[in-house]
Amino acid sequence: MQVINVYDVEVEQIEGVDKVTLRWVIDEKVGAKNFAMRYFVIEKGGETPLHSHDWEHEMFVVKGEGYISDGKNKIKIKAGDAIFVEPNEPHHVINEDSPKLEIICLIPIK
Amino acid sequence: MQVINVYDVEVEQIEGVDKVTLRWVIDEKVGAKNFAMRYFVIEKGGETPLHSHDWEHEMFVVKGEGYISDGKNKIKIKAGDAIFVEPNEPHHVINEDSPKLEIICLIPIK
Repeated sequence: MQVINVYDVEVEQIEGVDKVTLRWVIDEKVGAKNFAMRYFVIEKGGETPLHSHDWEHEMFVVKGEGYISDGKNKIKIKAGDAIFVEPNEPHHVINEDSPKLEIICLIPIK
Repeated sequence: MQVINVYDVEVEQIEGVDKVTLRWVIDEKVGAKNFAMRYFVIEKGGETPLHSHDWEHEMFVVKGEGYISDGKNKIKIKAGDAIFVEPNEPHHVINEDSPKLEIICLIPIK
């Protein structure tokens, strides 16, 4: 078994996206074969780009609050909320007011 | 997309295990097909049974601190730690001192 503090994982920037960082916490490099755990930190005023893909997301809000949106409707999210995004569903995560919005986001490994 | 607060999910007890509750937060009932998100709350003095199975775990410690063990060695875990347990690796989670140890635990859907 491996214990990995999320803040010890190398931080990646997403090209063209400000105020959002990404860490690949559990993936193939630690032996995962079925699904990967990523950790997003979204600063106040930041948001992930609206996009869709043919795989699902399972998310969990660790800190802060914000919104998840399909580009039309915004749903409030806060620490303790889990989020299921279906395959091909447009989505993005928005932090309007929190000092930091921190989210786990899991995806299948293809 | 669906937003589900973990504390709104029905609580299950694990047969024969005191001081541990389980919630199935994201699974087939919300449309997940590849992996499921469960939420464990372990009260002070509680622990999950030492066991193993042929699928992996991906965990994240949401609140509190404790230990993960393979029955021989104990590794300290605390909020912000992710844990990868390989298939067939014996494991259990122990809360010795925290008021509550709260953990997300993901497993593949077979």
